[in-house]
Amino acid sequence: MSILIKNISEIYTGEELIKDGWIAIEGNQITALGKGSPGLAEQNYTHVLDARDKIALPGLVNLHTHAAMTLLRGYADDLPLQEWLEEKIWPQEAKLAGEDIYWGTKLAILEMISTGTTTFMDMYFQMDQVARAVEESGIRAVLSEGLIEANDGEEGLRKSLEFCKNWQGKADGRIRTMLGPHAPYTCSREYLIKTGELASANNLFLHIHIAETRKEYEDFLNNYDATPVQYLNSFGFFQNRVLAAHCVYLDEKDLEIFAENDVNVAYNPGSNMKLGSGIAPVIEMLEKGINVGFGTDGTASNNNLDLIEEARMGSYMQKVKNCLPTALNLDDILKMLTVNGARALGLEETGRIKEGYLADLILVNIEDSTHFYPHHNNLSNLFYAGSGRDVDTVIIDGRLVYKEKEFLTLDKEEIYYQVEKLRKKIFA
Amino acid sequence: MSILIKNISEIYTGEELIKDGWIAIEGNQITALGKGSPGLAEQNYTHVLDARDKIALPGLVNLHTHAAMTLLRGYADDLPLQEWLEEKIWPQEAKLAGEDIYWGTKLAILEMISTGTTTFMDMYFQMDQVARAVEESGIRAVLSEGLIEANDGEEGLRKSLEFCKNWQGKADGRIRTMLGPHAPYTCSREYLIKTGELASANNLFLHIHIAETRKEYEDFLNNYDATPVQYLNSFGFFQNRVLAAHCVYLDEKDLEIFAENDVNVAYNPGSNMKLGSGIAPVIEMLEKGINVGFGTDGTASNNNLDLIEEARMGSYMQKVKNCLPTALNLDDILKMLTVNGARALGLEETGRIKEGYLADLILVNIEDSTHFYPHHNNLSNLFYAGSGRDVDTVIIDGRLVYKEKEFLTLDKEEIYYQVEKLRKKIFA
Repeated sequence: MSILIKNISEIYTGEELIKDGWIAIEGNQITALGKGSPGLAEQNYTHVLDARDKIALPGLVNLHTHAAMTLLRGYADDLPLQEWLEEKIWPQEAKLAGEDIYWGTKLAILEMISTGTTTFMDMYFQMDQVARAVEESGIRAVLSEGLIEANDGEEGLRKSLEFCKNWQGKADGRIRTMLGPHAPYTCSREYLIKTGELASANNLFLHIHIAETRKEYEDFLNNYDATPVQYLNSFGFFQNRVLAAHCVYLDEKDLEIFAENDVNVAYNPGSNMKLGSGIAPVIEMLEKGINVGFGTDGTASNNNLDLIEEARMGSYMQKVKNCLPTALNLDDILKMLTVNGARALGLEETGRIKEGYLADLILVNIEDSTHFYPHHNNLSNLFYAGSGRDVDTVIIDGRLVYKEKEFLTLDKEEIYYQVEKLRKKIFA
Repeated sequence: MSILIKNISEIYTGEELIKDGWIAIEGNQITALGKGSPGLAEQNYTHVLDARDKIALPGLVNLHTHAAMTLLRGYADDLPLQEWLEEKIWPQEAKLAGEDIYWGTKLAILEMISTGTTTFMDMYFQMDQVARAVEESGIRAVLSEGLIEANDGEEGLRKSLEFCKNWQGKADGRIRTMLGPHAPYTCSREYLIKTGELASANNLFLHIHIAETRKEYEDFLNNYDATPVQYLNSFGFFQNRVLAAHCVYLDEKDLEIFAENDVNVAYNPGSNMKLGSGIAPVIEMLEKGINVGFGTDGTASNNNLDLIEEARMGSYMQKVKNCLPTALNLDDILKMLTVNGARALGLEETGRIKEGYLADLILVNIEDSTHFYPHHNNLSNLFYAGSGRDVDTVIIDGRLVYKEKEFLTLDKEEIYYQVEKLRKKIFA
């Protein structure tokens, strides 16, 4: 497949803004882009898209979610954390079978694609089902089984490694894998060391939750006389390449450990707000040169997968936390959603609109919606007034998966039908 | 005009949830509602709407905005407050002529109607133009000229009173007016006393900004040895009925003054976050029985007029501020957007779906969008995952103004055209 996109009002490349531009895609790569008229023979392209009144951006990267938790969206809100988890979320998750995870993930992918996400990092269970949904839908994903020692043990770790090996590079390279020890409070020191060794031996990254709540932070100080980060660092956890989710509670020393070890961070403002967890020190992380991107977390605590809204909330949270309207500005959030996100996953060949990069990109309609008027600054209008619902067209790995708001790889009605059937069966 | 709405999936009345219901409207009033089949002769109604797969709610009330600031949306973001105001916003506002205000307000009304707002409280200048836009569009509004003593003086106050008298109850009662002294730091004690006397003599409420920033709060402590609220209270300002915007910085005594004097508060979370102002003590206000609703503020600091998103942000801010996921729950924000909003404006005959109330209501489509699946809780899906863009149909004062996403009283294309023309003229 080859695609020529012409007459693009603006291209945000991940580095700069090109007014009135074009992009050429061959196979799964961006082969050329420029200003004005492409001067290429249109008949050589499978698809020629006229992007008049549209802007192009790199596809957005979601650094932390539990996709199939869409099944629990709106099932339990406004509850104290432990009651929410122990009485609502965990008992329902225990009922989910493989097929349920598959449909829940499909629902999530439907939402992610239609709101401009082209790559997501998932941590859940029954990951073969997640991989199947990713493979079929055309999205790019990095997948990790969430390992809780008490439930999964050594056997779970072995199976998870097997999953990683089976799926690494599958779906034409769209699927990558990581090991996912859930958190320092659900996996012992020994288990984390073992996981790290396996990751190292198999060239895998690690995905983990760290310091999400004040309780976790204080528990570690009480039990180990160390912050969660310093505890993990004490046995060399960060010698592996790590993508850490949340990181709401970090002290100065923790920040230094992250900076020294090139730890990548998934900032989840929506979930951290809704669960009353706290506000991550993102400004401080960026100042230290730590690579931070955005995650949505699962939809039981967000409750959507819209990264544009996530970025707005994340920016506003930093502004209000620091009483500083300049904090986490438009340029910062654009980079975090694209370049930083790709880097955090080790997918350095995506996250930009650039010659030779993978063709993961989105087109946004700036003509139809009131919040795009006046056109002082279309990127501001998208990120500070709009939402993922402004996304019009999505290309992933050089393939059109969503065109003028129509899904080309997913059957929306079938997914809605299956998910509602599940709701009636499981939650009745 | 009479309207019968049948087969409504759920009606949130402002008090309770009715599954599978109907609503009958005659003239500008809700005349009946119930469960199941209405048992009314459909041919007696001008319009019969089938609301299968839709939910009905009272129209939302925006307690604080500067509508025509849509013209400045995206013009200046991420700047320090004084630079933003003095170098960007004020110089541009000074260029705006009456016709500009009219078109800017029209753009705002377009956005408000399409996102479910049926009543808004405005504070701006050239208010005759705002009133004209309100009259033509069919929305309900309470209008106040923002009085800055140094610019407007006694003459401005006199003219503002004239505006109030001219427009009070106009547009079939859809327009009401207030006096709007801008803030305690832009109007002297004497000016505020005079404004209060005129309000009292003419049975008008007052709309004012109070304690928006820490700087304002500290300036009052330094200059008057009193908080802004206690300063205003010292000369009887709250003996008038007051709608106070922002109120981010309040101490315990301030809360008591508000409670004792039935002061109404417009909570503007989006603007307070984006400008880095702070987080208002909404939980404390509600505990004291103070009436609080939501405002969006102007779109130069928000940057949209979507009250559903505003309510979500407002809830999440309170949860994270208090590290309490139960804070400002779904029921709280629903009441604040409807019942509390109407009460704050003295429009007690709207804000509910109830026999005898004004027919201001909205229908939301729960079938078409991914974030409404699964259907565990449609109100949660709307407020925690959706946005104003889920609104399908809007009725104001018994009149269909927006039907299945089509504007019936406003020419969208004309408004976009005029606003873009203005942008090119004024901001070039």
